[in-house]
Amino acid sequence: MAPKILIMGKLVWAQKECEDLLSPVAEIVHMQSDSREQLFQQFAPGGEYSDVVGIYHEHLSAKLVGHPDAAMMEALPESCKWFAHKGAGYDSVNVEAAKKRGIIVSNTPGAVNEATATTAVYLLISCMRHFSMAEAHLRAGGFTPPGVEQSSFDLSGKTIGILGLGSIGITFVNYIRPFGMRMIYHNRKPNAQAPEDLTYVSDMYEMLGQVDVLFVSCPLNEKTRGLVGKKEIRSMKKGSMLVNTARGPIIDEEAMIEALQDGHLSSVGLDVFVKEPQVDQRLIDMPHVTLLPHVGTENQDARRKMEVLALTNLRDFVTKGMGPTPVPECI
Amino acid sequence: MAPKILIMGKLVWAQKECEDLLSPVAEIVHMQSDSREQLFQQFAPGGEYSDVVGIYHEHLSAKLVGHPDAAMMEALPESCKWFAHKGAGYDSVNVEAAKKRGIIVSNTPGAVNEATATTAVYLLISCMRHFSMAEAHLRAGGFTPPGVEQSSFDLSGKTIGILGLGSIGITFVNYIRPFGMRMIYHNRKPNAQAPEDLTYVSDMYEMLGQVDVLFVSCPLNEKTRGLVGKKEIRSMKKGSMLVNTARGPIIDEEAMIEALQDGHLSSVGLDVFVKEPQVDQRLIDMPHVTLLPHVGTENQDARRKMEVLALTNLRDFVTKGMGPTPVPECI
Repeated sequence: MAPKILIMGKLVWAQKECEDLLSPVAEIVHMQSDSREQLFQQFAPGGEYSDVVGIYHEHLSAKLVGHPDAAMMEALPESCKWFAHKGAGYDSVNVEAAKKRGIIVSNTPGAVNEATATTAVYLLISCMRHFSMAEAHLRAGGFTPPGVEQSSFDLSGKTIGILGLGSIGITFVNYIRPFGMRMIYHNRKPNAQAPEDLTYVSDMYEMLGQVDVLFVSCPLNEKTRGLVGKKEIRSMKKGSMLVNTARGPIIDEEAMIEALQDGHLSSVGLDVFVKEPQVDQRLIDMPHVTLLPHVGTENQDARRKMEVLALTNLRDFVTKGMGPTPVPECI
Repeated sequence: MAPKILIMGKLVWAQKECEDLLSPVAEIVHMQSDSREQLFQQFAPGGEYSDVVGIYHEHLSAKLVGHPDAAMMEALPESCKWFAHKGAGYDSVNVEAAKKRGIIVSNTPGAVNEATATTAVYLLISCMRHFSMAEAHLRAGGFTPPGVEQSSFDLSGKTIGILGLGSIGITFVNYIRPFGMRMIYHNRKPNAQAPEDLTYVSDMYEMLGQVDVLFVSCPLNEKTRGLVGKKEIRSMKKGSMLVNTARGPIIDEEAMIEALQDGHLSSVGLDVFVKEPQVDQRLIDMPHVTLLPHVGTENQDARRKMEVLALTNLRDFVTKGMGPTPVPECI
């Protein structure tokens, strides 16, 4: 009998690829559960998912069955050994609980590098040029808003600092290189893959003091929660800017809003927020910030690439015992 | 006596540079005219500007004295031999009338390449990702708008076509190269400066049929007015997009709006309009287009560079008889 793979959540773009990748080696079962309670019963001995060996996980399934927390990991059947999360960030998945059950969690790094880095380039330009404010002024019946020229800049010659250089940050650096910015970064340790024209600054505060724009690109974990707080923001120059495409809680939103209100930060470009999908009304009321509703990976090409990579993890797990992109904690 | 230079309109950013460049070699006079009539009297024999040898021209002066049309060129004193326009586009300057009077017109190409090409990159990303629509949805109290994923794409692998490749287009190509798009262009003749990875397509309609995004980057003149009309837009693929940072009247706005309404064009990103500062209400009512109020060069760095280049033309004219950037018609 072919090993059983459960698709939790929707496959939107890679349905054909799913057939091509998995049908020859596995039985594909689509989750039919309306509640967490029902799902847990289906996982239990005798339940229809009691023999799944791998799970494809897509975050919208949380609307029906909740996030893959410790309780869900404990509810998974003994047979399950691979949990393929569709997404680069996997802070919604309880990896420790999975590991305790001998389950390997994989994510989809790389697949979203282009989409996320492109979003960061957009936010960088919008902050530097106040384009979001300009469009809002036009759509409200005006044309060129006052103050745009005074508060806007060319990118060349300015300094951008990347906090948390990973593969998204490297893609971002490759994208902005032709614009002629000075590029620096801070990680706890230098990234061996960092391009040569990107300067490592070992002291975070020293980097913060140099940047015109800070690009936040770290994963969210207990070390990075609130990493960019009042002290860090006040270490930046007056009038500097901040771009975040990573996760909202890495930045202390209160400290950021205060700095925007008193002009210490001249603009911010955000794709992520502390209490998504709620956005602080004080941010919405500010014309000089750019606010995207977490659409950093929201395009059909990126979604297809993520779906295919998650499915490839399951296929390779079934055929070879190991997928290409387990999360670092599971290696 | 030092030759007299008239500053028509405001020097905003390069006041110090104006002193440095011109004071050693010329007498600087700032226009004090409240009307076109008064200005023409000041140019006439005996008037206070009757002996100017060169003019610095900034477009906001038109609010007081009108555009530099044939009448203004005819009103200029015999002594005037250089007309330094601050701006890359000089369709508001009557070059033919200037030439008849033996006056050389200069513009400020290059100074705005970065600012304009950066604006085009922003509009390209916004169209491909529907970011303007996403932000509007968030600011209206929603979060992720429906349909963004379906209608959005990564840039890599898509084809961009440049109509009118000049120095702005070349800067744009250098900026987007890392994004991995296929890049083609059409000019009446190949541009000798075109980068090698940019493919020339001699037939405009053949290029239009290939592009996912068309970037309009030609100067406005009688050959380009209405160049992108109904036939040209319908030669593009269904669902393709259009970016314009050049001049509004190069595109037939009616044909473009019709194509947006029936879905032939899936999005457009515009910094320029046919009847600026008026913007067609049908465009304003469309959420899936990005509309900037002609802010392509609206930043202090670009403005300073333009002012300095216009002033440099006047300085070099005074000291050497020829400035660095006369417009092609005057060479």
